[in-house]
Amino acid sequence: MSTILKEEKKYIFKCVNCNTIIQPIGIQYLCPKCEIENSIKLPPKGVLNTLYNFDNISKKVKTFKTLKDREYFDILPINSIESLGYLRVGRTPLYNIHKLNSENLNFELLLKDDSQNPTFSFKDRASILVSAFAKENNTNTIVAASTGNAGSSLAGICASQGQKAVIFVPSSAPIAKLTQIVMYGATIVTIDGNYDMAFDLSIAVSKHFGWFNRNTAYNPLTIEGKKTVSFELFDQLNEQIPDRIFVPVGDGVIISGVYKGFEDLLKLGFIEKMPVIIAVQSEGSKNLIANIKSKTWKTIPSTTLADSISVDIPRNFYMTRDYIQKYDGEIVAVSDDEIIDASRILSRNTGIFAEPAASAAFAGMLKYKSLNRITDGSKNVVLLTGSGLKDIKTLSSVITIPKPLKPEIDSIVDYLSDLKKI
Amino acid sequence: MSTILKEEKKYIFKCVNCNTIIQPIGIQYLCPKCEIENSIKLPPKGVLNTLYNFDNISKKVKTFKTLKDREYFDILPINSIESLGYLRVGRTPLYNIHKLNSENLNFELLLKDDSQNPTFSFKDRASILVSAFAKENNTNTIVAASTGNAGSSLAGICASQGQKAVIFVPSSAPIAKLTQIVMYGATIVTIDGNYDMAFDLSIAVSKHFGWFNRNTAYNPLTIEGKKTVSFELFDQLNEQIPDRIFVPVGDGVIISGVYKGFEDLLKLGFIEKMPVIIAVQSEGSKNLIANIKSKTWKTIPSTTLADSISVDIPRNFYMTRDYIQKYDGEIVAVSDDEIIDASRILSRNTGIFAEPAASAAFAGMLKYKSLNRITDGSKNVVLLTGSGLKDIKTLSSVITIPKPLKPEIDSIVDYLSDLKKI
Repeated sequence: MSTILKEEKKYIFKCVNCNTIIQPIGIQYLCPKCEIENSIKLPPKGVLNTLYNFDNISKKVKTFKTLKDREYFDILPINSIESLGYLRVGRTPLYNIHKLNSENLNFELLLKDDSQNPTFSFKDRASILVSAFAKENNTNTIVAASTGNAGSSLAGICASQGQKAVIFVPSSAPIAKLTQIVMYGATIVTIDGNYDMAFDLSIAVSKHFGWFNRNTAYNPLTIEGKKTVSFELFDQLNEQIPDRIFVPVGDGVIISGVYKGFEDLLKLGFIEKMPVIIAVQSEGSKNLIANIKSKTWKTIPSTTLADSISVDIPRNFYMTRDYIQKYDGEIVAVSDDEIIDASRILSRNTGIFAEPAASAAFAGMLKYKSLNRITDGSKNVVLLTGSGLKDIKTLSSVITIPKPLKPEIDSIVDYLSDLKKI
Repeated sequence: MSTILKEEKKYIFKCVNCNTIIQPIGIQYLCPKCEIENSIKLPPKGVLNTLYNFDNISKKVKTFKTLKDREYFDILPINSIESLGYLRVGRTPLYNIHKLNSENLNFELLLKDDSQNPTFSFKDRASILVSAFAKENNTNTIVAASTGNAGSSLAGICASQGQKAVIFVPSSAPIAKLTQIVMYGATIVTIDGNYDMAFDLSIAVSKHFGWFNRNTAYNPLTIEGKKTVSFELFDQLNEQIPDRIFVPVGDGVIISGVYKGFEDLLKLGFIEKMPVIIAVQSEGSKNLIANIKSKTWKTIPSTTLADSISVDIPRNFYMTRDYIQKYDGEIVAVSDDEIIDASRILSRNTGIFAEPAASAAFAGMLKYKSLNRITDGSKNVVLLTGSGLKDIKTLSSVITIPKPLKPEIDSIVDYLSDLKKI
């Protein structure tokens, strides 16, 4: 590493597929060599990994506390921490849960509640870094294709930073998500087509106007932003790593960010081994799991109610696969029924109201628990990526609201006395 | 004070209307003397204020930092800080905004973002204290009447504390808010009637079953929970008070909490004067403002899109009126159009997506600004009480989503080139 990285550069990029080193000159997306081979029917190749001069940083930054006090600045691809603006992104709570459904747990269950971000999802971690980089590189308009959280996140972050956001959405995008984007003052481009078309058009338009593009598994900075969750976990666990981290997986960018964060800590010598990271997918959208060991790619069309992880072609497939293979990661799929059950169990036991994708990660943990795959006394993190308020429609369709009662005290007392659950 | 307060008691109650001192023996709601005179057509009398032995506390707690390090325990009506459970309630960010619509502000604009609470609203501050008190007093079921945030807040907090919540809602309550309550595992009692009926029935049922009741301006602890926002503001402003605080007002409990917090600091000698607190109401629901100076009560039926502050009879009218009169508070009304405009200005300038009631407070600040009532260099706080995701329906009805475009790069480039706003 240190022989390749020029002293004056803070970081370099390395192509995940062909290992080419790319010097960061201004804005950089996919590896140019690999990009030209990409087809829309396969996961894209050429996603870049960001590497720092870890040897040099180790010499200067001897304790994790120093890294934290400098807000991880040494291993972020920006020139000034001020560029991150004023919103409180990250620094989300980690809750230690001792009981589920009245059963005392014989392991540590730790919930990382990333709904407590400015736009109510984990995606703010990526958006803020992209926004900071744009600020430092004098580009004031940022583009993203999104069906939901990434778009509203970028719109909100840009609003706070005085930047313009242009969000490409497929025409099927629900009104609730569009409302948040429009309120933040972003320009919406609704495409009469699907997400993949919106994705490709957003890139073409970015190139045309010279705008910065935030697309997931295209702009390498999204992973650098997302990795901060791992630093926070390490900090909140008093500089220990958890044994397992359950992460919801669609495109595979969040899980790559989690891996990247711990890998950075490993390279800096702050940890000696990696935690076991478990990729949780929905049964109805498990194209990472289905293809992880096969030599040829096969797409199973997605149908799941967890829309944030409903993905036909995981755009960060190769990086995710390589991380899972390199660090003995694990994979598990959960059904929509398991996701809904998990969502209920999570909300009523912990007070955390999560979106279905986040509940999928919790469902993965419950599945491990039921299979006795969680060792006694181990530390198990579930990454909860967004608020349940983001997707009321799905959840409201699976609950039952009791019928109105007459406003009479006697009948209400009778009704409540009959309810066994009170 | 110190002569009345018995040494062994941490606090006493004082009736806002008749000044009777009530010793806290178990659970206490309204002043019994005043309560019997109440009519449903007038604001209720007999709301209790919680008083501590400030002289004694001053001797022990000499610095605000000590108070903060003890998590304000000395001036909270609970026996142990542990009773508050694990959720991160409060400790919400305060943002310093320098520009609005490209105009540099000549005063300090400070936004307290209380959407960053576990259930995404300010109400968690009250719910957690009520829950902690219930825990210490061996009552496991807590009841509230609510049309929205208070109910979902209590449901979520109870879920985290292993308590039962019973939420009375009028049949008109929207599905989104009910969904959150049901997911948290609370029992919903839907009343075929309005909020006032739900309120009264929830009290009758609480008495029947011996359950604890959280109703606003009925249970005095809600104000004690809400006052913590003032302590945080004082802390975040480096132990200074702001010049003005804009607070959205419906029932008048939040604003009373804000007053109470600063009044506690005044009594402890940490501040020398009170900030100017501005009660912001919606033009369509301004029964506090309309009655604050009159001797006889007159109700104007409410019609405003800011549903969290849509109230016919502000249940905490007398305490709010007295605070405003005692501490030279101010009042301002804003129209629904001003609320929507404020919501847009807030979101697109700051990245904070707030519910209409919260935007009303921001509209109040904008009105003051336009009337040149904000002095140069002064510190002005706007209290943002809840997330815009709580009320997507209202906001989505006032925005315009552009029509879908054909997935062709040329027409999209033309479309974007035409948009003056980019």
